[in-house]
Amino acid sequence: MTIYRANLIDTPTPESFRMVEHGYIAVTDEGRVEGVYTTLPDGLSRYSIVDYGDRLLIPAFNDLHVHAPQYRNLGLALDLELLPWLQTYTFPEESKFTDLAYAGRIYRRFVHELWMQGTMRSSVFATSHFAATKCLADIFLLSGMGAKIGQVAMNRDCPEALHVSTEQMVQGLTDLKHYLDENGRDGLVEPIVTPRFVPSCTRDMLEQLGKVAQTYHLPVQSHLSENLGEIELVKQLEPASSCYGEVYNRYGLFGQQPTLMAHCCHTDGEEFELLKRNGVIVVHCPMSNSNLASGVAPVRRFLNAGIQVALGTDVSGGHNMSMLRAIQYAIQVSKVQYTRTNHEMAFLAASEAFYLATKAGGAFFGKVGCFEPGYEFDALLIDDGYLNYDNYTLQQRMERYIYLGDDRDIRRRFCRGKELCEPVL
Amino acid sequence: MTIYRANLIDTPTPESFRMVEHGYIAVTDEGRVEGVYTTLPDGLSRYSIVDYGDRLLIPAFNDLHVHAPQYRNLGLALDLELLPWLQTYTFPEESKFTDLAYAGRIYRRFVHELWMQGTMRSSVFATSHFAATKCLADIFLLSGMGAKIGQVAMNRDCPEALHVSTEQMVQGLTDLKHYLDENGRDGLVEPIVTPRFVPSCTRDMLEQLGKVAQTYHLPVQSHLSENLGEIELVKQLEPASSCYGEVYNRYGLFGQQPTLMAHCCHTDGEEFELLKRNGVIVVHCPMSNSNLASGVAPVRRFLNAGIQVALGTDVSGGHNMSMLRAIQYAIQVSKVQYTRTNHEMAFLAASEAFYLATKAGGAFFGKVGCFEPGYEFDALLIDDGYLNYDNYTLQQRMERYIYLGDDRDIRRRFCRGKELCEPVL
Repeated sequence: MTIYRANLIDTPTPESFRMVEHGYIAVTDEGRVEGVYTTLPDGLSRYSIVDYGDRLLIPAFNDLHVHAPQYRNLGLALDLELLPWLQTYTFPEESKFTDLAYAGRIYRRFVHELWMQGTMRSSVFATSHFAATKCLADIFLLSGMGAKIGQVAMNRDCPEALHVSTEQMVQGLTDLKHYLDENGRDGLVEPIVTPRFVPSCTRDMLEQLGKVAQTYHLPVQSHLSENLGEIELVKQLEPASSCYGEVYNRYGLFGQQPTLMAHCCHTDGEEFELLKRNGVIVVHCPMSNSNLASGVAPVRRFLNAGIQVALGTDVSGGHNMSMLRAIQYAIQVSKVQYTRTNHEMAFLAASEAFYLATKAGGAFFGKVGCFEPGYEFDALLIDDGYLNYDNYTLQQRMERYIYLGDDRDIRRRFCRGKELCEPVL
Repeated sequence: MTIYRANLIDTPTPESFRMVEHGYIAVTDEGRVEGVYTTLPDGLSRYSIVDYGDRLLIPAFNDLHVHAPQYRNLGLALDLELLPWLQTYTFPEESKFTDLAYAGRIYRRFVHELWMQGTMRSSVFATSHFAATKCLADIFLLSGMGAKIGQVAMNRDCPEALHVSTEQMVQGLTDLKHYLDENGRDGLVEPIVTPRFVPSCTRDMLEQLGKVAQTYHLPVQSHLSENLGEIELVKQLEPASSCYGEVYNRYGLFGQQPTLMAHCCHTDGEEFELLKRNGVIVVHCPMSNSNLASGVAPVRRFLNAGIQVALGTDVSGGHNMSMLRAIQYAIQVSKVQYTRTNHEMAFLAASEAFYLATKAGGAFFGKVGCFEPGYEFDALLIDDGYLNYDNYTLQQRMERYIYLGDDRDIRRRFCRGKELCEPVL
């Protein structure tokens, strides 16, 4: 058992921050939270205490939608909408990952930056290349951080260098599954079935992916209703489907296994109902949606309907790996919805957006994302001293950290109870 | 004469970045740019060269709308719209500036952060208190940075602690004018006539402010058409005026002297024409407009009409002092307009937004904001080494710096040719 002392802040529920000033958190040797205490119970007094003084201890971040091979394009190429953006900037960059040396170089930087930004778990799109995807998994394993890793299925309307056959994809998923069953540190790193999006996959590909997901009980991730041009294209390609989401659904890729659908900016009507009925998780990517002029996802409507929503950076559509920035953008774009709906859709409170980035996203990885008993201890120690020069309350310190903080403020990172030092990658 | 060598990047015109790879810039002893050169002319070869290697040298930033006394509230209190936000959070904080010791403490931090963020010139709202405003001017003088400093006129519907009479305001402006004529370092620090906004000022106040502005040829700054509730209030208070801007215009506060109007989110019709006719400068504050759900200013329409637009952080409505973030938000909210107008209003290119933050805003301070001959040498040396790990072009390095850079990357700061070390304030 290890006991840490600090100002403990988390969001067991989205409505407000739970704040325990100079509190104690006990963590078992298996890396799970035993409890949070204002004063230390007698039974725990024999353990020594790691005292972090007046600093903040918060749950680590979970990025539920991020493209590792787009890391080199971070902060670049934000002057086109989705479909031409893919063809002009993104597919050419991803094509470079046939070169395993290049892949290793970029993926090491990518994983290092996740560590830097305090994102201890992520659900990641790799490329369509098996070797590079396995290399990414190995780098995650070295880092000690958790990830779902998706070799990206693409066999329609894509450059030759990104084309992968259905057979290769099934083989790749099977191989990665077996490799990580052996080496994945009890599910810390796992494969995820990843059709890029409907326009990139033939029906045969989708059908086989659905079968693999069912056979191995693998989770699924893809893109949904991000951009109006994309939705129009899907209509043309799949005229028999009543909505975009129905295409995935037909092949068992829409909630039959735990499923992440990124964006959902324009999800409405039947697709909205299908999402809800199937328990599909929406991954909101406000940074990316702003940069690519995709639209604003109706997050408040999703939440009101009981649909699960998590948060993603969507690098490199998103221009920043920091989940703090994703939280901030989630609040800001919710204000656009608030204005647009004549105040009918309340905007997100800071605690709600923080919940999305921690506990809501963490649920995809097990009991992860808050400090309730039994949760894996994924945490960040924050030194906000330079921001806290006046008599700020804990609530205000937390808000200032969200809006003004950055990776400089993170002094310790924990994943599954283990402190992770800077990875040498 | 001093010669600097670096990758020189500026925007003499908004359409694109001018980039001189490993170029030379000659700066006179008076702090003005002599010229920019690919190879050094013979006439300059006798001067020694300060070689900054592969780093970037760019014009320093100009923040045309920022509230110094709101610095403590940075990153806080972003859950209300303008009018209740002022009454609940902002007026109570500004009321503290009756205490000169408190004012000095916060203002020193504020000016230090301007330096840190590379904002070498700013147009600043202080509070309604003369002593605190003079204190702010003194801190700027110590720092070596340029500023227009406005004691804020308020004598209607405000807390007692912020109320200032018309006589006191006229006296304050006169005193500050005389003080800075003597001590303002050749206009580096100057007063600016600053009615808070129409709802805070009686007609008598506006009339007297207009007269002072005319008498001393002082510039003017205020707020205009930021929020729908505010516009409605102005209509009720000034039913005889055809639009919000016309109230300022009636009293000589709308372009009769160089005039900044912040926000203009809902400026349209007659007000738009009046702005244009009078040469009023719009200060676009996209961060603040997002945070306070005020709306999105039609920047492209202003630019197409030939109206001058500059950029402001509007701290603490804006949550960040960095002009890099203001640039980035300007691009992003212009994409909201782009979508809303069915692509009719083109979104801002990175070079356009950078132009707004440098040359467009700099024009308010003289020849400031680019590296053309005769311009004052206001510059930042940027070390983007950690962002430039692959074969990025200069254009890409600049875009990555805009989206991903922060104060850490600024290694040297120049204002009027003089290198400014970290101020001890």
